[in-house]
Amino acid sequence: MAEQYRIALDAMGGDHGLSVVVPAALEALKQYTDIAVILVGDEAQIGAMLAQHPVVVGNRLRIHHASQVVQMDEAPATAMKNKKDSSMRVAINLVKSNEADAVVSAGNTGALMATARFVLKTLPGIDRPAICTILPSMHGHTHMLDLGANVDSEAEHLYQFALMGSELTKAIDDNPNPKVGLLNIGQEAIKGNEQVKAANLLLQGSPLNYIGYVEGDDIYQGDVDVVVCDGFVGNVALKTSEGLAKMVSSSLKQEFTANPFRRFAALVALPVLKSFRRKFDPRRYNGASLLGLQGIVVKSHGGADSLAFTNAIGIARTEIIKQVPQRIHKQLEHLHTQRIKA
Amino acid sequence: MAEQYRIALDAMGGDHGLSVVVPAALEALKQYTDIAVILVGDEAQIGAMLAQHPVVVGNRLRIHHASQVVQMDEAPATAMKNKKDSSMRVAINLVKSNEADAVVSAGNTGALMATARFVLKTLPGIDRPAICTILPSMHGHTHMLDLGANVDSEAEHLYQFALMGSELTKAIDDNPNPKVGLLNIGQEAIKGNEQVKAANLLLQGSPLNYIGYVEGDDIYQGDVDVVVCDGFVGNVALKTSEGLAKMVSSSLKQEFTANPFRRFAALVALPVLKSFRRKFDPRRYNGASLLGLQGIVVKSHGGADSLAFTNAIGIARTEIIKQVPQRIHKQLEHLHTQRIKA
Repeated sequence: MAEQYRIALDAMGGDHGLSVVVPAALEALKQYTDIAVILVGDEAQIGAMLAQHPVVVGNRLRIHHASQVVQMDEAPATAMKNKKDSSMRVAINLVKSNEADAVVSAGNTGALMATARFVLKTLPGIDRPAICTILPSMHGHTHMLDLGANVDSEAEHLYQFALMGSELTKAIDDNPNPKVGLLNIGQEAIKGNEQVKAANLLLQGSPLNYIGYVEGDDIYQGDVDVVVCDGFVGNVALKTSEGLAKMVSSSLKQEFTANPFRRFAALVALPVLKSFRRKFDPRRYNGASLLGLQGIVVKSHGGADSLAFTNAIGIARTEIIKQVPQRIHKQLEHLHTQRIKA
Repeated sequence: MAEQYRIALDAMGGDHGLSVVVPAALEALKQYTDIAVILVGDEAQIGAMLAQHPVVVGNRLRIHHASQVVQMDEAPATAMKNKKDSSMRVAINLVKSNEADAVVSAGNTGALMATARFVLKTLPGIDRPAICTILPSMHGHTHMLDLGANVDSEAEHLYQFALMGSELTKAIDDNPNPKVGLLNIGQEAIKGNEQVKAANLLLQGSPLNYIGYVEGDDIYQGDVDVVVCDGFVGNVALKTSEGLAKMVSSSLKQEFTANPFRRFAALVALPVLKSFRRKFDPRRYNGASLLGLQGIVVKSHGGADSLAFTNAIGIARTEIIKQVPQRIHKQLEHLHTQRIKA
C-alpha cells in the first residue's frame, strides 16, 4: 500500500465547527488520494454529520472522540487548564503520539498556539514559534510572518522567522532560493526601530537570499517571496488588508446595484467580476502555518467555509510531504555549526 | 478687507515640483477666495511657470525666492545642515516669522518633519510631533496617526497622539466628540505589547471619547473616528493599504481588457467603475497633518498631482480657520491642570 499522510482535524473548532470541517474532510479525501483523515471531536455529532454525506472513502477516515470544545473567545490559559479533552488538544496529542502527521484547526488562534507549543514543544534553537500566511501578489503570492504569535520580537527572533519562512517557501513553492525581505518603513532619518536594524545586520550575514528592507506595499508587489516582521506589525498589516478588501468588495457591489442601469451593467460585467473575485478569493489562501514546532500545525481562518478549510488541509499535506519541521531543524543545525566555526 | 489665510507652498518639493504646485495654487485660489498663497522657490522658474497659466488672482499670490531644493532621498540631517535656503526651509521660516499661517510641502517627509520641528518647535507638553492622515471608510473616513514620524513610541506618546488626533478631527470634521481607538491585535493571550497596554490605561482615564482597542480592519469599517498607533505600525498599515489598492486596481483593469468581450463589458460598466474609483480616489484624501508643532504644516504625497495638492491646501486652510495648534495647546493645558488637581 502506498504511503498515507495522516491529518488530524479539530472537527469542533472554528465559527462553524462540524458543518464546515466534515464536508471539507470529505472533499480533501477526494482530492488527495494519499491522505487519511482523523476527525477529532464529539463522536455522536460527527457520526450524524457523516451520515448526511454518504461518500465512499474506504478506510481513510476515522473518528477520534473528544468530549470538550475550546470556545473561540476562551483565554488560552483557561483552555489549557480546563479543556484537556478538547478536540483541539486531542488532535494535537495525536501528532505528539505519532498517530497523525499534522493537525488542522480553525479554532481560537491563541489557544492553538499555546497548546501546540505546550504539547509538541519548539524545535531546538527556536525561541518562539511564528504564524506564517500566504497573501496574493501582483505576480503570484507572498509568505508573511509573524502574524501575531509574538509581539515585541527581538532581532534574533526576526532572524529565526526569516529562516523558517524561507524553508517553508522552499517546500511549498518548490522555490530553491526564496527572496527574503525585512518589513520596515521608508523614511531615512528614522528608518526602523532598534530590533529591525539589528535584525537587518544578522540577516545580511546569513546564508539566506536576503534582499534587505521592504515596505508595506511590497507585500502585494510580488518582488519578494518572504516578508518578515514582528507579530504585532504583521497582524495589523493582515487585518488592515482584510478590512480594505472588505470595503472595496462591498462598495463594488453597492455601485453595481445602485439602479437598474447599473444592475444591467453588472450582468454584462459578471464574468469579469467573477474572474476578478476568484483571483483574490481569500479562501484560496486559507491555511496559516505555525512554524518552529516539533510537528505540523495549520491554522484555518475561524470563519472559513469548507472550500477554504479544504485548502488548509492541502497545505498540511504539502508540509508533511516536504517535511517542513525537519527541514527547519536541519537548517538551524547547519547555521549553528557555521556560527561556531565563525 | 476680509481676513486672508496665508499659505506658504514649498513650490519645488515633491516628485513633480513646480509643474504640480503652481497649477494647484491657482486652483486653490479660485476655490477658496479667502486664501493668499506664497510660492516659495526659484523666482525665475516660478515666474516662467506662472506665465503659462494666465489667471487673474489679484494680489493674493506672491513669490518668495529660495535658491535651494531638498531632494526626495536626501537625509534629513544633511538637508538641515546644507540646505538652509531650500524652498522647504524658507516656507517653514515664513510660518515662524508670522508671514504665513501654514505651510504645505510635497517634499521629503523626514526632512520636512525635522526642519519643521527645528524651526517651529513642538507645543509645550508635546514630546514628539505626529503625522496624521485621512483614510476612506465604509461610512465616511477615519483619521490615523502616527504614520512614521515616531518609532518605538511610549505609552505617553500614544496618549498625546490620541489627544492631538481628537482635536484635529473635531476641527476638520466638525465632530464635537470623535471616537478614539487604540490599534491593537485581537488575540487575547498576547493582546498588545507593553506600550499599548499602558496607553490603554492612560486613555481609559482621559476625558477623550475613548472606545478602547480597535484592530486593523476597523480602520476601514468606519465605526471609529481616530485610530492611534506607533509610527512604525501606522506606516506599515498605510503602505500595505496602498499596495493592496494598487494591486486591486491594476487587476481590475487587466480583467476588463483581457479580450474584446471584456472591453465591451468595461464600456458598459464604465460609469460604475468611474464612480467606484472616485469614491476611493487617494487624491481626495491627500494632505497629512504634522501635529504637535507651534504652527500648521501639511504634507502632500510626494507623487501628488495638482488635484491632490489642491486638496492638501484645503486642509491647511481648514486648520488655520479652526486654529488647530491653539486647540491642541489649550487641550494639553487643560489636561495638565486636571492631572495636577488629581
